[in-house]
Amino acid sequence: MPSDVPGFDLGLLSPVTAGHDELVSDHRFLDALVGAEVALAEAYGTIGLAPAEVVEAIREEFRADRGIRPSSGIDPAALATDAVAGGNPVIPLVGVMKARVPADAREWVHRGATSQDIWDSAIMIVAQRAVAQVSNSIRHAQEWLLQLAERHREDVVVARTLTQHAVPTTFALRAVNWQRGLRRAGDRLEALEFPAQLAGAGGTLASFIEVTGSPERAQELVAAFAQHAHLAAPDGPWHVLRDPVTEIGDALVQSIDALGKFAADVATLSRTEIGEVAEGVGGGSSAMPQKQNPAEAVLIRSAALRAPQLGATLHLASALAVDERPDGAWHAEWPTLRELLRLALGAAWHASSLAAHLRVDTVAASTNLNETGGLVVAERLSLVLGPHIGREAIAALVARAGAGEDLGDLVRAAIREHDLDRDADALLDPAGYTGLADILVERALHADDRRGPVHRQEDA
Amino acid sequence: MPSDVPGFDLGLLSPVTAGHDELVSDHRFLDALVGAEVALAEAYGTIGLAPAEVVEAIREEFRADRGIRPSSGIDPAALATDAVAGGNPVIPLVGVMKARVPADAREWVHRGATSQDIWDSAIMIVAQRAVAQVSNSIRHAQEWLLQLAERHREDVVVARTLTQHAVPTTFALRAVNWQRGLRRAGDRLEALEFPAQLAGAGGTLASFIEVTGSPERAQELVAAFAQHAHLAAPDGPWHVLRDPVTEIGDALVQSIDALGKFAADVATLSRTEIGEVAEGVGGGSSAMPQKQNPAEAVLIRSAALRAPQLGATLHLASALAVDERPDGAWHAEWPTLRELLRLALGAAWHASSLAAHLRVDTVAASTNLNETGGLVVAERLSLVLGPHIGREAIAALVARAGAGEDLGDLVRAAIREHDLDRDADALLDPAGYTGLADILVERALHADDRRGPVHRQEDA
Amino acid sequence: MPSDVPGFDLGLLSPVTAGHDELVSDHRFLDALVGAEVALAEAYGTIGLAPAEVVEAIREEFRADRGIRPSSGIDPAALATDAVAGGNPVIPLVGVMKARVPADAREWVHRGATSQDIWDSAIMIVAQRAVAQVSNSIRHAQEWLLQLAERHREDVVVARTLTQHAVPTTFALRAVNWQRGLRRAGDRLEALEFPAQLAGAGGTLASFIEVTGSPERAQELVAAFAQHAHLAAPDGPWHVLRDPVTEIGDALVQSIDALGKFAADVATLSRTEIGEVAEGVGGGSSAMPQKQNPAEAVLIRSAALRAPQLGATLHLASALAVDERPDGAWHAEWPTLRELLRLALGAAWHASSLAAHLRVDTVAASTNLNETGGLVVAERLSLVLGPHIGREAIAALVARAGAGEDLGDLVRAAIREHDLDRDADALLDPAGYTGLADILVERALHADDRRGPVHRQEDA
Amino acid sequence: MPSDVPGFDLGLLSPVTAGHDELVSDHRFLDALVGAEVALAEAYGTIGLAPAEVVEAIREEFRADRGIRPSSGIDPAALATDAVAGGNPVIPLVGVMKARVPADAREWVHRGATSQDIWDSAIMIVAQRAVAQVSNSIRHAQEWLLQLAERHREDVVVARTLTQHAVPTTFALRAVNWQRGLRRAGDRLEALEFPAQLAGAGGTLASFIEVTGSPERAQELVAAFAQHAHLAAPDGPWHVLRDPVTEIGDALVQSIDALGKFAADVATLSRTEIGEVAEGVGGGSSAMPQKQNPAEAVLIRSAALRAPQLGATLHLASALAVDERPDGAWHAEWPTLRELLRLALGAAWHASSLAAHLRVDTVAASTNLNETGGLVVAERLSLVLGPHIGREAIAALVARAGAGEDLGDLVRAAIREHDLDRDADALLDPAGYTGLADILVERALHADDRRGPVHRQEDA
Repeated sequence: MPSDVPGFDLGLLSPVTAGHDELVSDHRFLDALVGAEVALAEAYGTIGLAPAEVVEAIREEFRADRGIRPSSGIDPAALATDAVAGGNPVIPLVGVMKARVPADAREWVHRGATSQDIWDSAIMIVAQRAVAQVSNSIRHAQEWLLQLAERHREDVVVARTLTQHAVPTTFALRAVNWQRGLRRAGDRLEALEFPAQLAGAGGTLASFIEVTGSPERAQELVAAFAQHAHLAAPDGPWHVLRDPVTEIGDALVQSIDALGKFAADVATLSRTEIGEVAEGVGGGSSAMPQKQNPAEAVLIRSAALRAPQLGATLHLASALAVDERPDGAWHAEWPTLRELLRLALGAAWHASSLAAHLRVDTVAASTNLNETGGLVVAERLSLVLGPHIGREAIAALVARAGAGEDLGDLVRAAIREHDLDRDADALLDPAGYTGLADILVERALHADDRRGPVHRQEDA
Repeated sequence: MPSDVPGFDLGLLSPVTAGHDELVSDHRFLDALVGAEVALAEAYGTIGLAPAEVVEAIREEFRADRGIRPSSGIDPAALATDAVAGGNPVIPLVGVMKARVPADAREWVHRGATSQDIWDSAIMIVAQRAVAQVSNSIRHAQEWLLQLAERHREDVVVARTLTQHAVPTTFALRAVNWQRGLRRAGDRLEALEFPAQLAGAGGTLASFIEVTGSPERAQELVAAFAQHAHLAAPDGPWHVLRDPVTEIGDALVQSIDALGKFAADVATLSRTEIGEVAEGVGGGSSAMPQKQNPAEAVLIRSAALRAPQLGATLHLASALAVDERPDGAWHAEWPTLRELLRLALGAAWHASSLAAHLRVDTVAASTNLNETGGLVVAERLSLVLGPHIGREAIAALVARAGAGEDLGDLVRAAIREHDLDRDADALLDPAGYTGLADILVERALHADDRRGPVHRQEDA
Repeated sequence: MPSDVPGFDLGLLSPVTAGHDELVSDHRFLDALVGAEVALAEAYGTIGLAPAEVVEAIREEFRADRGIRPSSGIDPAALATDAVAGGNPVIPLVGVMKARVPADAREWVHRGATSQDIWDSAIMIVAQRAVAQVSNSIRHAQEWLLQLAERHREDVVVARTLTQHAVPTTFALRAVNWQRGLRRAGDRLEALEFPAQLAGAGGTLASFIEVTGSPERAQELVAAFAQHAHLAAPDGPWHVLRDPVTEIGDALVQSIDALGKFAADVATLSRTEIGEVAEGVGGGSSAMPQKQNPAEAVLIRSAALRAPQLGATLHLASALAVDERPDGAWHAEWPTLRELLRLALGAAWHASSLAAHLRVDTVAASTNLNETGGLVVAERLSLVLGPHIGREAIAALVARAGAGEDLGDLVRAAIREHDLDRDADALLDPAGYTGLADILVERALHADDRRGPVHRQEDA
Repeated sequence: MPSDVPGFDLGLLSPVTAGHDELVSDHRFLDALVGAEVALAEAYGTIGLAPAEVVEAIREEFRADRGIRPSSGIDPAALATDAVAGGNPVIPLVGVMKARVPADAREWVHRGATSQDIWDSAIMIVAQRAVAQVSNSIRHAQEWLLQLAERHREDVVVARTLTQHAVPTTFALRAVNWQRGLRRAGDRLEALEFPAQLAGAGGTLASFIEVTGSPERAQELVAAFAQHAHLAAPDGPWHVLRDPVTEIGDALVQSIDALGKFAADVATLSRTEIGEVAEGVGGGSSAMPQKQNPAEAVLIRSAALRAPQLGATLHLASALAVDERPDGAWHAEWPTLRELLRLALGAAWHASSLAAHLRVDTVAASTNLNETGGLVVAERLSLVLGPHIGREAIAALVARAGAGEDLGDLVRAAIREHDLDRDADALLDPAGYTGLADILVERALHADDRRGPVHRQEDA
């Protein structure tokens, strides 16, 4: 059956990333592959080997401007099909590129390189850009969360452990905790390295020495290549030392974890019975007009449930990188890293949007806080009154309150009976038992690395 | 930057599936979604509720013929974008479909259904077709492997354990073992069920009772829907009982395991130093003209390293299917199941091709068998001579042979010395120590369920 | 630093399994290893090769009775240490066993076997017993859930989708859905096969032909071995065809998924704000006396989050089972399968306990049902009134009710205004919109395979 | 059936860790739990709240000296069983500890703490010690690999890609690449942070303010606690921000990846047909006396196949850390992190042993290098001669050599025919085409952070 629109995956099954993943599309990978080949020719120019006009001809043919891509005119699907025989699409790509440059430039395309040099450099080009975008979304989300914390500094809410009401906290501290997880993840993303790869068939650079004439020149070539590709100079070949890839993977998974924790809390706090927060956008239902689904939180969570296993595959591929190029592990890495980047792009974007538009229902939060009739401060009663009236008495008091008696009356009676110098109302006030919450919030709000105020993000 | 070709994923990063995964493309999912909606209207017709002309109008508008798809004219990428607000693409799809049918038909589109009904039924439609294709490729691969076994029944080769030569076996038994793994996986694929889903918003079918007027009619509607969608009638709603999905996932992963085991052996046996097999097609290198890479085996292995973690995600999604529709787990399932189907399609196709074209180098196999100077039968010597000459003498004999002495001479001397009635040449012949190999091969070759001979598969 | 109690893992980090996992402890594996060796000697006796008194001597030495284990006197930790050189503990075990039997029996210990024969058979012995126990707990849990369904057939509760109130359902249907997931998983567990392994070093049985004298006798030996080990006769060697292991793994993971779904719902429904259910036992907090944690649900969930990745490792080990015994994959399988069995034992036990003691708060459920002021039937209003008053009017009505107006008044007004023949009270009654819930419950309660009533499970 | 030796897991199923994992045994966790409780009492002493004699009494009771453990007399298995009700073993432990100290000291045990404070701090205490040991083994392995590189600087070997001979490299470069992977992993391990946790039930430290009297004093308490527990002071509560755990997990998985890559190469290079390396210890077979299995490599690989999925579980647990303590995710983390630490301890120890004892067969390596009749330099011929004689002529020349003609003769003829000024012998010498191998080796051997020479590791 013919397809009227080409493409295997157009986002239909991936609502969390749809509209936010273009940076890691096949087209971008193809652009990066072409870009890596061009950078190699430029590097030969820079070290004085390739004639300037040859380099210019190559650069010009695959220039990204006037609204066209570097890979314009090259069909990714055709390359994909042609890739099967050799196991990767660089081999057919080189043929296509050579055919498009002047005859005297052909020898400078892919010269001395193995296809893994180009592929690995290209994935780093793509990953570097995507990670910057993920990081940017995360930084925005952080700032929105801090603004949320500022707006709700005084709002006492209940902290829940093992699904049960535990003790009081503040909405601000909850927002700051979300922000702390994102900050740590963002820092890790920003510390990543994106090394170029240029090492030849066996990781020895022998071909580049042959072409350039000396080890020194070969090393200059690598440095020039990295520079033209806007990548870090590698500290050595990493054909079968895949830590650059797994470290990106780990940082992405950590980022998605932090986004997932935020989303898990939003989904829970959005429950009809809880209702402490609501998403500011989206969430309609086809059948039930009254519903207001936490759609962005749900989508982010869908990414968070998938990312860890993708990260595991990257590690397996690293551990199984046998020989000087492995028999399957390298190929397993490509779509996996791309999917992780994609999920991070989508989840981070939605988290930023979610944070920007989150609505807090302080009335509901307050109602929930009092749901257990004041027992949210039971721990405090235990600490303060326990030494005076004994554990059993505390337990009995809590049990009676749990059964419906007024906790204030019970506490006042206990204070009177034991002649204690405590103010029952103060003791029972949840706002008086939020611990360091405000200090921790203060610290986050005034951290040195906090960015300035941001404005509501518009849809990208 | 504009894209001159639309589409996020066109196969560039997925050489193992490129050209073999169309059955699970976004277009096919969209066709299945449209098909499920049409089947629902047809079901309303079948039970006598929807007027025949209305059903016909809907069917006609989304008919798959004259070279066009059921979803022709509907843009998956646009749906994907519109899906974000509601969290799934069925919601916007319903709007698109309603707009394309006559006014009086509109109410019969999606009537009473929740988007999950349509989505879940659609994934089953897609999965059923894809699994049939995977199974078909696996059955072909099995047959090629049996033909290989027939051709190499007499060929004694070395069995390896923990990377070391162990004892003799036959190439035929190895091929039969590959075949047995595939047969078991194929049987499991063919036993899968693909149930329709039609249960309404909370899994109670309340809306369908409302529309049809009675529980009995609602149940008739489900049966008719399943029939029109060519799916099994469900034994109950499975909105949050995801075993239909995980059982498909498990069977696919098991299939890819069996394909991976075959590929792992081919990759190993193809090693330059071993050289017992070579792929019949592909495998060229851009830089090294002498290389003949086991490209199909490498691609299959790349799938085998990824599939288990995808299967794990399906299980997680099942375990986390909280409430009557979960907050992320369902969405995590979609791209994961699709990717598993995709990998199975590609890996099974290549395995069939690999099995059809595999070349066996019996000379190399024979050379390898003798690489340890006859010690491949050391276990036999130990069993036969050990009781007579003692463990230490056997160990000494093996050590001397390992150090270069002629094993035949040593064995003959031992037989003479202990006056044993054994023929040294027969004892040392690896062909005499292949155990049940031929019987196991015979059994596989004459199994009842063996298909007839097949011809070399052409590219699909 | 000396340890006063030996043992690496005594359950401290595994509360979900503590007290319920003895069947898969190292001692049980050691018993099974010894048992497999004894079964081999017995098999030699059965086919008339080993003298009866020799077999009896071996059996007697490792008899499991008089309160002692078959492996009594053999130190697992010492075997573990001695296992390193050969990579598995069977090698040193054989030495230990031979030293304990009379001189003339020694040759019949491990005769012709490779260590994998014994190990693989032993894991099947252990797995078979553990799976039976898991299945038993699951069957008990099912029955408790059906009794719960019976008790709460009339109790209308809210169905939630994407965390939000959706439509009415019954508590009974929810319980039946939990039960359906468990039933399916239990069926799959009970359909598992546990084949013996007896195939020799290279999977050819050559050694057994050498010892028994003919292929026929070797096959008789395998059958006798399987019988003595209480295992299924294998349909062929499965040294490197690990589907027997992955199929057990898949069924265990599916079981834990079903247990996890049940636990996820219990945890959610136990939330302080929801409070529809409470666990009948356990759940105290050290610091907060008022808390009643859903401790069993939490523990079951901890298993459900781990199991899928363990299942993935089994599949990887299967896909990487290269050669005739692989270089790591087999060893990766052992602790992974054991941990899966362990988690299933613990999670299934706790699920049975949880189901037996679950308390349902029908008042809370009813309060929750009405939390949205009747809008839980909004879908019904849309279906019933929509065709008469139009989509916009429905949306407006829902919006006004959401803003606080009385839904009954609004509906009654709409019925009057459009002169509809509907009873507003009936229309608004959630109990009238539970669809097939009761029919589905009825079906489960009267299924043929339902077991008789069970009594409250005592601690095992 | 009674067990004569207690303990669920004594290492029987875990040969890769047996004998090397004591640091992460249940006993060590129990010691760390006790240690964390003692550190809390000490911290109260340090800030002047708890009387010195009370602190001393507690410290004395659980002192680790005179050959006994801090947790001496406390039964981990009993705690494990008692842990079920509350979901963690800290609750019963506190009871046990209080019962063992003088009456006036009891209130200072666990004062103000929640069980997660103690548990989280304890896992960091255990992890810190284990990671130091892993790192130490890795550093040793690195040094052995560098010594190996030094010994084999001149040894030219073949580089293999996709299982096929590609180009020459040196054994030294291969060893240096193994070392580079380990160095990177070791650096990451050494950069890890191990923060204490002391945040109270809801992560607000409210209880500690209540006990100490002020936020300032509560913060002093945290600092003192961290110091006494020999942990880093936390930058904030991390109850539900699990990056400290996932970062440890990621670094461990990366370490095991690097160890796995080394082991994968050793296993491959040990293949009977390749034989370039052999393990210096172990590897015997029960049935086949001639075998020399790469047992340590196999065991390390078994760890490498399991670690990534364990790392994934840690990430999932982090992403699902809902509320202020989650409903299962935290509990899923414990055994998973412990198993990762265990695998790393065992795999790193064996890698160090493997590196220390690895034997290189330079004759076999040389034979392999020449296996393709000199075609290992085909890439060079293509680069050097190609521009002069054309691609087709190169392809033809390679094909003829592949078919058996003497490559030297063919090359000499081509040089003569085209009148080129190249020395055929130099051109064909693999040693002349090892590229930067020696420079990369030199760089590693003289890196600043290289440790001094180490002596052969003795069994720990």
